[in-house]
Amino acid sequence: MTLSLLFPVGSVRCASRQIGLFGDVAFSRSSRRAGAMRIVATLLVCLTMAAPVHAQRTAPTHAIIPAPQRVDLARTGSFTITDSTPVVIAANAGEEVERIGRRLATMLGPGAPRAPRRIAARAAVPPNAIQLVIDEDNDDAGAEGYQIDVRTGSVRISAREPAGLFYGVQTLRQLLPASVEHRAALSRTLTLPVGKIEDAPRYTWRGAMLDVARHFLPLDDVKRYVDVMALYKLNVLHLHLADDQGWRIEIMSRPNLTRHGGSTQVGGGPGGFYTQAQYTELVEYAQARNVMIVPEIDMPGHTNAALASYPELTCDGVAPPLYTGIRVGFSALCPSKESTYAFVEDIVRELAAITPGPYIHLGGDEVEKLTHTEYLRFIERVERIVRTEGKNMIGWGEIAPANLDPGTLVQHWRSDARASRDSAYLHAERGGMIILSPGNRTYLDMKYDANTILGLRWAGMISVEHAYSWEPATFLARVPERAVIGVEAPLWSETLEKRSDYEFLAFPRLIAIAELGWSQRNKRAWSDFRTRLAEHGPRLQAMGVNFYRSPEIPWK
Amino acid sequence: MTLSLLFPVGSVRCASRQIGLFGDVAFSRSSRRAGAMRIVATLLVCLTMAAPVHAQRTAPTHAIIPAPQRVDLARTGSFTITDSTPVVIAANAGEEVERIGRRLATMLGPGAPRAPRRIAARAAVPPNAIQLVIDEDNDDAGAEGYQIDVRTGSVRISAREPAGLFYGVQTLRQLLPASVEHRAALSRTLTLPVGKIEDAPRYTWRGAMLDVARHFLPLDDVKRYVDVMALYKLNVLHLHLADDQGWRIEIMSRPNLTRHGGSTQVGGGPGGFYTQAQYTELVEYAQARNVMIVPEIDMPGHTNAALASYPELTCDGVAPPLYTGIRVGFSALCPSKESTYAFVEDIVRELAAITPGPYIHLGGDEVEKLTHTEYLRFIERVERIVRTEGKNMIGWGEIAPANLDPGTLVQHWRSDARASRDSAYLHAERGGMIILSPGNRTYLDMKYDANTILGLRWAGMISVEHAYSWEPATFLARVPERAVIGVEAPLWSETLEKRSDYEFLAFPRLIAIAELGWSQRNKRAWSDFRTRLAEHGPRLQAMGVNFYRSPEIPWK
Repeated sequence: MTLSLLFPVGSVRCASRQIGLFGDVAFSRSSRRAGAMRIVATLLVCLTMAAPVHAQRTAPTHAIIPAPQRVDLARTGSFTITDSTPVVIAANAGEEVERIGRRLATMLGPGAPRAPRRIAARAAVPPNAIQLVIDEDNDDAGAEGYQIDVRTGSVRISAREPAGLFYGVQTLRQLLPASVEHRAALSRTLTLPVGKIEDAPRYTWRGAMLDVARHFLPLDDVKRYVDVMALYKLNVLHLHLADDQGWRIEIMSRPNLTRHGGSTQVGGGPGGFYTQAQYTELVEYAQARNVMIVPEIDMPGHTNAALASYPELTCDGVAPPLYTGIRVGFSALCPSKESTYAFVEDIVRELAAITPGPYIHLGGDEVEKLTHTEYLRFIERVERIVRTEGKNMIGWGEIAPANLDPGTLVQHWRSDARASRDSAYLHAERGGMIILSPGNRTYLDMKYDANTILGLRWAGMISVEHAYSWEPATFLARVPERAVIGVEAPLWSETLEKRSDYEFLAFPRLIAIAELGWSQRNKRAWSDFRTRLAEHGPRLQAMGVNFYRSPEIPWK
Repeated sequence: MTLSLLFPVGSVRCASRQIGLFGDVAFSRSSRRAGAMRIVATLLVCLTMAAPVHAQRTAPTHAIIPAPQRVDLARTGSFTITDSTPVVIAANAGEEVERIGRRLATMLGPGAPRAPRRIAARAAVPPNAIQLVIDEDNDDAGAEGYQIDVRTGSVRISAREPAGLFYGVQTLRQLLPASVEHRAALSRTLTLPVGKIEDAPRYTWRGAMLDVARHFLPLDDVKRYVDVMALYKLNVLHLHLADDQGWRIEIMSRPNLTRHGGSTQVGGGPGGFYTQAQYTELVEYAQARNVMIVPEIDMPGHTNAALASYPELTCDGVAPPLYTGIRVGFSALCPSKESTYAFVEDIVRELAAITPGPYIHLGGDEVEKLTHTEYLRFIERVERIVRTEGKNMIGWGEIAPANLDPGTLVQHWRSDARASRDSAYLHAERGGMIILSPGNRTYLDMKYDANTILGLRWAGMISVEHAYSWEPATFLARVPERAVIGVEAPLWSETLEKRSDYEFLAFPRLIAIAELGWSQRNKRAWSDFRTRLAEHGPRLQAMGVNFYRSPEIPWK
């Protein structure tokens, strides 16, 4: 027996996080009495936990990812969910709250979908109910935060916005055993520990990117990705919709983009694309899970599929053949032809019309066929097109030296070979915000280690620990913390053919990135994260996620 | 360090299987010289392997499942597959061989699908080719057997029938690393060990059953199941297409069966059904993988979905409501009404027309609403309907006491509570054949152990070892070995909602059943099987199969 068996994981947390003992004490961040009790309780727990396991008094722990701001679970007491546990919302609750309540009720019950029960403002909450409360004065919660209060006879999730309620439900889900993911399982036991949680995100941008261009990924598979993102409180799905090897979004005014440009993929398979109706379906599916869709059409490079479909976009007017290899840098829209900008206007106009979120991503990376000046003028001109359509542009790090609007976002992915190192700071200096997607930390298509069959290795191999163990606020020396809008993990698909391939590389590393995006710096520690992550194995398997059982994690 | 590390797995096989040393020795079951050399070589290998590992002379082993009849891998030498390795078939090879060759070539190459190369009968085989040979005089192979001969400069798979070639390719696939399952992976290395394999199945019926009635499973998910079945040389997929909770196959003459009867499922979800066109697509997909589809419409019990759709099938003419629970035994077609048999004729006629295989399964299990005599007469009458349509009937064990045609198959699943124990023997006595699906060994919906969330436990909990460790030939005391046509593992879906749920319960236990059905009795041993199965973890994950990592298996 090793030391770690004698002193279980919970005990090492005493130094780094507050583990409190709560019964029915009123809980409020402004309550001094509660605060004092919490400190006493924490001391008590830590002292108790210093005793060996055979004392059978292990402390309550949790495996919530991302780590919440504050978790205070009681050492005794629980709330038991039965077939008749009502989910309660206010009589005047809006459609979003209704939907969150319905999905919670359905998840907890065994049979047909269930609706939440509406109760009048002054009516008593029925006993043993789970109540979802919107409190517009709840400024502690912010736009995405929430509070959970579990007692033996009631559960209350409160938030300022529906997004917060949604995330409160995700936390509740993680407090329940993995069997909650199997609605048809028989005689499952769903109990919640008594306690309180206060939570809100660190960053507003917590993103993932899917490259559906190199290989096409069907709509249903993208939805499954959104499902897992939502569980881990990620809120941006960036879709890389066009590249040299394929065009994946219907553009009504340019039908050959999908008809021809979408007809193949890396390796020569059949490719595919989303109709605008399918895209809209995805936007709504994601919205219901607090995930914003950001469409990317990469330009002026990474455009072979477009050039093959519309020869007027090339300087010599000759359409290249479709491309199914994995080289980069060889294609470019012709920067000196007006037909190029008419094309960009068509694309941006149609995308803006079906994208409720405020962003259109126009790529801008790895351009080798234009002079640097041509490149910068191109970026500035297409940025104006995006703004004319009422959206903000996003571009990869290379765009930073252009004369950008401060409302544009720059997505850092590597040092810029053309300009000074990490030119993202130029954008920060003009008041712009930076998305952090450093290749050597967040690129999910890098191999885990030398034994990984899938993926690439140009940015290095990225273990789960390596993906987790970095600090966004200080990552780019010349970019101050206030200029970091958040983090995003791209998954490029040169080697990926099916959903299980994507999942193998994304999980669990995307879960590590999710914690970087959500959790406060002082709540993050690798040793603690890996212990919590270990508990997620059965849940991910219950969800059918083909995650990599990294030997770094002591999987359950 | 333990004993098992000092003496690796291969060494324990010396007692139970022949591991030979082959270079370029001519290989034939009738060659005495080769036989003698094989014995000498085996002795040599076993003696060598008795030395500790540090001698660095470990024997070649394999992880092929099901275990082939004979495997002789050389201790040195390999055949390396490159992008230009040709797959060669005869100039006059038929469509099936062409298809097998195309799929092999495509699997081995990185890019677009590749066709095999056809060569004339007397032409030289190009060097470094993989040749697929049909030899109609190859009686050693039988209908599904094959031989593989890997040399450093050539690979040859020969068989009497295309089915044998298909299985030879599956064995070849298992000799290659898991990276063969990832066609888009970069710089994968595919090498085959030099050696020879002779193989043929023990049983002609190696089946799996999916209950798509309790919960509906979309067509694509069924195809994924067929993919895994094919890798393990299973050749029958029995679809349980109707039960109390849902009707899942379009019947043109009875459209309300799917419109109403297919509209829900256990728990009240939306249900679903296959159109006849989709069914035909599945039949062809399965045929291309040597899997026969056997459709089952359970009757006279398990028919609530039909009764709810056509009230003339009930004795009182009143349609019951749709049912979404999990009880059994409460429904029955009215045995005394001619409208019942007109209905059965419609069903069987339409199913027979779209089912090229010779079998229609009509259930017959768990009937509580008829007298025993009514039940037997019903079974005899519907059997005649099946025979009139040119097919053979299959029924669950309860049908055995009826006066059955010897061409009917009886599927044993448990002791028959009405008749004498294991009444299947009655059918064996009349010359009929028995499919073995004992619930306490082959029912994949039984939990693995008390911690399994999904599944049921009425037939006991079934570990992988328990599923593996029984002998079909002697399982039913009064049924002689010659009356056993094979084995089949049913997966009932009361608790299963999605593909990953089905896979979790099916794999790896279905793989154990596959070995029972294919491998000779003296080639089977749990300790050897679990070691081979351990090597299949990365391959199953590469295929995206959500298998259960049972702690019984030392997974790689």
